[in-house]
Amino acid sequence: MEKIVYLDNNATTKIDERVLDCMLPYFKEQYANPSSMYDSAHVCSNAIDEARKKIADFLGVVDSGNIIFTSCGTESANTAIKGVVNQYGNLETKNHIITTQVEHPCVLSVYENLEKKGYKTTYVAVNENGEISIDNLLSKITPQTILLSVMHANNETGAVYPVYEIAQEAKKINKNIKVFVDGVQAAGKIPIKLQDTEIDFYSISGHKFHAPKGVGALYVKKGTLFEPFMLGGHQENSLRAGTQNTPYIVGMGEAARLAKESLDFELNEVKRLRDKLEDGILSSLKNAKLNSKSKNRVPNTTNIGFEYIEGELILLYLNELGICASSGSACTSGSLDPSHVLRAQKVPFESLHGSIRFSLSRFTTEDEIDYAIKKIPEVIKKLAKISPFQNELMKLGL
Amino acid sequence: MEKIVYLDNNATTKIDERVLDCMLPYFKEQYANPSSMYDSAHVCSNAIDEARKKIADFLGVVDSGNIIFTSCGTESANTAIKGVVNQYGNLETKNHIITTQVEHPCVLSVYENLEKKGYKTTYVAVNENGEISIDNLLSKITPQTILLSVMHANNETGAVYPVYEIAQEAKKINKNIKVFVDGVQAAGKIPIKLQDTEIDFYSISGHKFHAPKGVGALYVKKGTLFEPFMLGGHQENSLRAGTQNTPYIVGMGEAARLAKESLDFELNEVKRLRDKLEDGILSSLKNAKLNSKSKNRVPNTTNIGFEYIEGELILLYLNELGICASSGSACTSGSLDPSHVLRAQKVPFESLHGSIRFSLSRFTTEDEIDYAIKKIPEVIKKLAKISPFQNELMKLGL
Repeated sequence: MEKIVYLDNNATTKIDERVLDCMLPYFKEQYANPSSMYDSAHVCSNAIDEARKKIADFLGVVDSGNIIFTSCGTESANTAIKGVVNQYGNLETKNHIITTQVEHPCVLSVYENLEKKGYKTTYVAVNENGEISIDNLLSKITPQTILLSVMHANNETGAVYPVYEIAQEAKKINKNIKVFVDGVQAAGKIPIKLQDTEIDFYSISGHKFHAPKGVGALYVKKGTLFEPFMLGGHQENSLRAGTQNTPYIVGMGEAARLAKESLDFELNEVKRLRDKLEDGILSSLKNAKLNSKSKNRVPNTTNIGFEYIEGELILLYLNELGICASSGSACTSGSLDPSHVLRAQKVPFESLHGSIRFSLSRFTTEDEIDYAIKKIPEVIKKLAKISPFQNELMKLGL
Repeated sequence: MEKIVYLDNNATTKIDERVLDCMLPYFKEQYANPSSMYDSAHVCSNAIDEARKKIADFLGVVDSGNIIFTSCGTESANTAIKGVVNQYGNLETKNHIITTQVEHPCVLSVYENLEKKGYKTTYVAVNENGEISIDNLLSKITPQTILLSVMHANNETGAVYPVYEIAQEAKKINKNIKVFVDGVQAAGKIPIKLQDTEIDFYSISGHKFHAPKGVGALYVKKGTLFEPFMLGGHQENSLRAGTQNTPYIVGMGEAARLAKESLDFELNEVKRLRDKLEDGILSSLKNAKLNSKSKNRVPNTTNIGFEYIEGELILLYLNELGICASSGSACTSGSLDPSHVLRAQKVPFESLHGSIRFSLSRFTTEDEIDYAIKKIPEVIKKLAKISPFQNELMKLGL
């Protein structure tokens, strides 16, 4: 198989060559431990400081002292959530967390774990487009609430949540609440500006915006305390132990700079290709339904349900044509359960099992989209012939 | 400054070029998320499986299913310790941990944190060579003990601890105890064979044996349960969430293979150079004292106390000559407190503040050692002239 059309950029992205070029010296000559005291170590710690400034700039933050480097988005989320609970929580009077039904597994798993320990979580519902009602969310706040946790953009549907407004309104009701935003799927796709907001924690993952897998960051608002997650040495201002991964940190800094620079391209050109793909598929297949019609979506993502067709089979056939896409999060793969996000949106049974996410990047080409628009309907039509739902598909002209 | 003589390999090591070569394809073409379902993702997950086998082989384990990849040695230690405490501990009846006074900060910090939560820790003492008494250690075991935690080799002195025997004897006294061994400073320096031992957890860090910073592993004995530390997706058999860092995992696998292959060289040639450096310094300076005379030391490390001389000044002068060494762990740098390891060994005041660790690797050359043997005494003699302890130094011929 020669041709690869990579439409799974919400799972992970290709490293930008310019990012890799920045990293290479730190794999070769500049290998010192950045915590050491000699000149070559200072070269590394200075490079980390530079990267920290680039991340702060990317997140719209003035002071880079608010940025902590971690090993991934999952670690950033674990750090924020457990950090708040261990700092401010107790099982009697400060035991309540509010989140949404559509968060990423790396967030939901931590809440499941905390529930086993006696904490209580309220999962706010979404509508059929994956949108939440701010009023409904705010109505869940009690004096026991310690943490409010809402993602900035959903990994499966691309729906964007009004996190700045939610944070601001929540603190008016209970100023002691901490607000954590999982920004992993927003970073690089929409503008982010955390300065002067009420968001306390914001997590990002390098490999979602063309840096390597295995590096992330966590923004922490000045003055917001938390118990560190990774305990050990004095690195990262004693807030995250472990020898700093200089090459990846430098790489993520550069990836953030490039992502900020490419944001207009993302919002216009990537969106144009995403819309072309979406329109191309929806107009040629009567059983194809858009799983989020929200006006607030990241520009690179579409999630389409193919009624009466099995999603795993679609992916198998697409794989044979070199088209990479996914059904749900890569982090839940191996499970045959339908996506918790689409179930929360009450996507009907007939398309729930045949829903596929296509996610583009700035490296996606017009040719690739043309190929996908040609091949995807062919695959669906082929699979329609072996579906057990012949009557239903016939009515849809398949 | 041109010449660099890197004698700080216990802080971090240079990446082996062969390791970097193995990693590069996974930064370029093979960037898929290893949890995804298409062919290019399987290329990555297969590469991770291969690396897992290499790590198992390196640690003397038959089944690579016992190996979990992490982001660093610190994470591996946090995972083991918190994992045992959250799985088996309670503050009333299962609340006791035994460790040593000379563990690494990434281990000690976790115990400090657990003590704040109500757990009790016994810190077993060491003698002047950094050795522990097994009988003394075993006498601390009670029915409340849930965890015994002893490092395999000390990062500052290189002292090697009889971890296999300790684990075996401890389980004879209380079979429910879990045994965690921090093997970060042993890996690549001495043979490791975990198969058929009573060790439950063994942590390693890639960057201590010529893999990059930002990847580690944890061996978990078959049947030993623990609560996962990093919560989220299904990766690593649901024992460690977070998108897998394919290039670094592949790199660490290859680094482990090379380290195993180089072990004889380490035990003979690196040891010869270390002994030459040690003898060269000790024979030319009467104020130089070896900080561990233990017969069981890793072959690459020496820790020498220079009486009446300030360690930070020694490092400053060595830095100007291009010689990289350290006083204590890189993870405690920034602190001016003398090393907790040397204090536990009751190293006398006059050499405690002037103790320097030199640590070699398979890339250290004879020329570099000759240069160090020439320059280090010159530096000490220069500093002796400005020391406030003129009388004492005079008596030592300085």
